[in-house]
Formats: sequence, structure tokens, C-alpha cells
Amino acid sequence: MSFVQQLIEQIQDKKSVVCLGLDPRLDTEGQIPKYLIEENRNPNETILEFNKALIDHTYDLIPIVKPNIAFYERYDAIDALKKTIKYAEQKGVLTLLDSKRNDIGSTCEAYAYANFKVYKAQACTVNGYFGIDGIKPFLDYTNKGIFVLVKTSNPSSQEFQDLFSIKKSEIANKETELQIDSVRLERNYIHMARLIQEWSKELNKFQGYHNLGIVVGATFSHELKRIREIARNSIILLPGYGAQGATAKDIQFAFDNKGLGGIVNSSRGIMFAYNKSKKYSPDQFPEAAREEIKKMNFEINKFISL
Amino acid sequence: MSFVQQLIEQIQDKKSVVCLGLDPRLDTEGQIPKYLIEENRNPNETILEFNKALIDHTYDLIPIVKPNIAFYERYDAIDALKKTIKYAEQKGVLTLLDSKRNDIGSTCEAYAYANFKVYKAQACTVNGYFGIDGIKPFLDYTNKGIFVLVKTSNPSSQEFQDLFSIKKSEIANKETELQIDSVRLERNYIHMARLIQEWSKELNKFQGYHNLGIVVGATFSHELKRIREIARNSIILLPGYGAQGATAKDIQFAFDNKGLGGIVNSSRGIMFAYNKSKKYSPDQFPEAAREEIKKMNFEINKFISL
Repeated sequence: MSFVQQLIEQIQDKKSVVCLGLDPRLDTEGQIPKYLIEENRNPNETILEFNKALIDHTYDLIPIVKPNIAFYERYDAIDALKKTIKYAEQKGVLTLLDSKRNDIGSTCEAYAYANFKVYKAQACTVNGYFGIDGIKPFLDYTNKGIFVLVKTSNPSSQEFQDLFSIKKSEIANKETELQIDSVRLERNYIHMARLIQEWSKELNKFQGYHNLGIVVGATFSHELKRIREIARNSIILLPGYGAQGATAKDIQFAFDNKGLGGIVNSSRGIMFAYNKSKKYSPDQFPEAAREEIKKMNFEINKFISL
Repeated sequence: MSFVQQLIEQIQDKKSVVCLGLDPRLDTEGQIPKYLIEENRNPNETILEFNKALIDHTYDLIPIVKPNIAFYERYDAIDALKKTIKYAEQKGVLTLLDSKRNDIGSTCEAYAYANFKVYKAQACTVNGYFGIDGIKPFLDYTNKGIFVLVKTSNPSSQEFQDLFSIKKSEIANKETELQIDSVRLERNYIHMARLIQEWSKELNKFQGYHNLGIVVGATFSHELKRIREIARNSIILLPGYGAQGATAKDIQFAFDNKGLGGIVNSSRGIMFAYNKSKKYSPDQFPEAAREEIKKMNFEINKFISL
């Protein structure tokens, strides 16, 4: 069964578009609780225990989890990543590996294999700077999901992604500069969205969506609205909810009238929710996470009709 | 000592700008020899033995090696990667980890830590789509080298990198479209080169170069010439020599009159050189690699004066 079909069925079953980011941090106060670090022998064990407890207490409320591989690389804990992905799947939760890989040819094939066959994720994120050469090897796994960066949630995303540019097809010369009169320009991220729409033309759809998704920072609601008009059949992964400041109102434009079209990620906001309220002791981090997800679902479902 | 100083000293000592790409392939005919795969118990051992033999036979001819992490992830052989990096360093060869990581905030910090402290590379490649937020955490390691993608060697690099765009500073509105009269446009990769030049303004230089390098496909000599004019103080990593078709003549514009300014990568062309000539049996892959590097140095040094 294709990723997009599984995702939509999960969303409809659980009435939830919340994606739980699993980005373990071991060395920052108020993140993975100290007692867990002291109880275990190494980061692999600590992270796995932490992730499993989170999944155990939230699997019925979320369609998907999103581990960011950077943290597993940083703690040399790829084993914990693999076991987390396996565990989530056993609990009936989909997995989206946030790896933002990008390369070409057999190197890109190696990355796709690593994401889907070594780490065994059901979907992953990709950076589209290389063009289709960096996307095709991922698309060759026809049942897997791919989310391409379009407009990222960070402030300096404007430096490059917001440059106004002109469609390639209108120009075909070797020059690096151009002087033109009267032309319509669009921002780079709009062109990236157009490329994704083009690359996905032949893909199978389920309830109007295919496996080639996109990433748009939840912090940019104006941009999101325009991107949705272009990449009409892509599921939009929306990071930046909570800790980065985006609200339920900001992300409503991603969704159609059946409440489909997006998944909303929160990582720190859920994982370390125990830390935001005196109500919870550190060992109640899974209960705090569950409450936080319920709150997110309630807030988001006011704006979308699932 | 900073990466760029070590690199330049190595280049001048060895009179070589050749970068040996260490991209192990185990499942393709004519790549890592069969007898090595049969002799060893697992990919970690096979890859490490292969890489060590290559380094043993070439370390006096090359300033730097470039493992692409995709292949080590694909074969679940991160251990071989770490040991290869350590071994190269012991033999007096620098290491550039080709990982093209890209993210923001604490996630980006985690990637920088993984590249420099877990895998222990002396330099790495980065994708600049996020803007400075995705670069700064790497630059915070002030002695390490960073190479940002500008114009990649693959055919579809034109889809996005070659779009004509306009500098952000000239426009500051919320619109996603723009109608303007008479304006100077430059391609996206030119703007990326300008951003890199801007981000590197405060960096220390050695013989005119700093630690923030760039990546330009050796297959694009026309573009290379223009990029060199903009990013004047960046070492240029030039992939695409050999297997991808670029020649010594194509890459000359990267270099100044002391022969400095670039490193020229070849991976398959050197690693699997044994396969191109009847002269060598599979177990002579290290001798074939050495010959190939000598040939590359001879060809390249006709065009640059070291």
C-alpha cells in the first residue's frame, strides 16, 4: 500500500494531523530527563527508552512520527533510530525520517537505499537543489513518501529561497547575467513548488494526493497559501508549530475541505512538554506529551474538518 | 592550525590538487574486487581494507580524501567511515566528508557535531538552501573546512540552480510575484556564490583563502570562470573529473597564478582504475589507483603552476 494511502487512512482513523518529532537531546537542561540518562548505559539505550515511552503513550493519537537523523548521528545512536522506527511501525504509526539528503546518480541511490532499506523509514525529507536527478532515485521506491523542502521555517530562509526568479523555459543561453524588460518574476520557493508539481505529474493519487510531498515552514502562512495553489496534490509537512511560534490558524491553508493535505510537526513542544508545567515530574514526560498532543489536535481541528 | 592552511601546505608539499573520492560500491561488477568481499566477514571490514590499501598506495600523492557518507550509510558501515578518516589522518592526508547536510538551529548544530566530532572529518560539504542559519553552526568550528554547493555537476542542476533571479536587497515585499521593468538578473548559483562571499567576510585567510569553500561541478567551465570572480577567496572543490567527463583544461579557471584555489575530485576513476586496463589484475587496484593519480597530476599540472 502506498505511503500516502496509509497516511490518509491513519489521519482519518485517528482524526489527527499531528506529527510527533523525535529529536532527542541529551545534554541540555530540561530535555531528556536526567534520571533516564543515569539509568541507562549509553545514548542508544537512553534515546530508545525515551522514544518508546513517548510512542507507547501517544500512538493512538498520531498518524506519524518524524525522527530527525541529525540527533541520532550526533549521539552516534543510529541503532536507537532503527529500533525506534521498527517500534513505531509495530504500534501502527508511520515513520518519516527527516534527513534532507541530496546527491546525484549512484550516490543518491545509496541515500534512498539507506533511508528506506537500512533505516527502514516509510518516508523521508529531501533537498531539491540538484533538480530531478536528486529526487528520481527516491521516487523509484514507488510506495514510499518523499517530502521536498520548499520554504523552510527559519529567518534566513529568505536569503536564497525568497529571491525573485524567472522560469528556465523562458531563457536558454549560456550567460550568467541578463538584462530584460518587463517580465513576470516569482520567488525561488514558488519555482521549487512548480518543479515538484511537474515531477509528480505521473504519480498515482489517493483521495487527490500522491507520494511526493513538500515541506513549508508553519511560520509562513501567506506563502503557504500560494504554495498550496501550485502544488495541489502534495501532502504538506508543516514544521515550526509550537516552539517556533506557528499557531493552528497559520496552517489552515494547507488543508482541503475534508481536512486532508497536511501534517503538522511539533518536536520539543511535545517531547519536553513535562517541562512547561509544574503539574508534571520528569518521569511523567509521556503523560505530558499525550496531553500536549490532545491540546494540539483540539486547536488544529477547530480550523480543519476531519 | 586551520583547515585551509593545512590544505595549502599539503598541496604545495605534494604538488598535487587531486582529491581522492572514497565511495565504496560492493554490489556492482568491476568495483570493489570480489576476492576482497569474499575474504572479509562484512561490509565494514571489506570497505576498510579497500580504503586502507588505497590510502597506503597514494598518500604521498594527494593532499586530501573525500569519502561520501551516502555509501557508508547504504552499507551500514559508519564504523568503516570513522576508521578510514582516522587512518587517512595518521598517514598525513586531510579528510573532507561529503555529506551535504542542511538544517537549522540545534539540529544543524547536531549535524556539525556529527561531522567534526563523531566522524572526526577535518572538512565537510553543506547545502546552502536554508541561508546562513544552515551554515553558521558549521562555521563555529573555526578550524574546520566547509564547502557549500553552488553549481553541481549533474544535468538537471539547471532546473533550479540556473534560474535567473534578482538580489533580495532590491525587493522587500510580501508578494510571491513581481512585475518589473528593466532589471539585471543573475542565475541562482551566482547568487549562492555571492552569499558565500558575504558570509565569509570576517574569516581569517591564509595565502588569500579562508575555510569557507564552494563546490562547482568540473563539467561547467564557463560557469566556473564567473563563480571564481565572485567567490575570490574560497577554495573550490571540483567534482566530476574523469567518470563525469571533465578534463584538466575545464578546471583551470579555479586556480590562481600560484596554482592554488581548487581541489579536483575523482572517485570511480581512481578507485576502480584497475578495471580500465588489462594491465592490472583485481588485486592490483591500489597500484592502478596510484598510476591514475600520477596521470591526473601530470594532466592538471600542465595547466596550473604549483
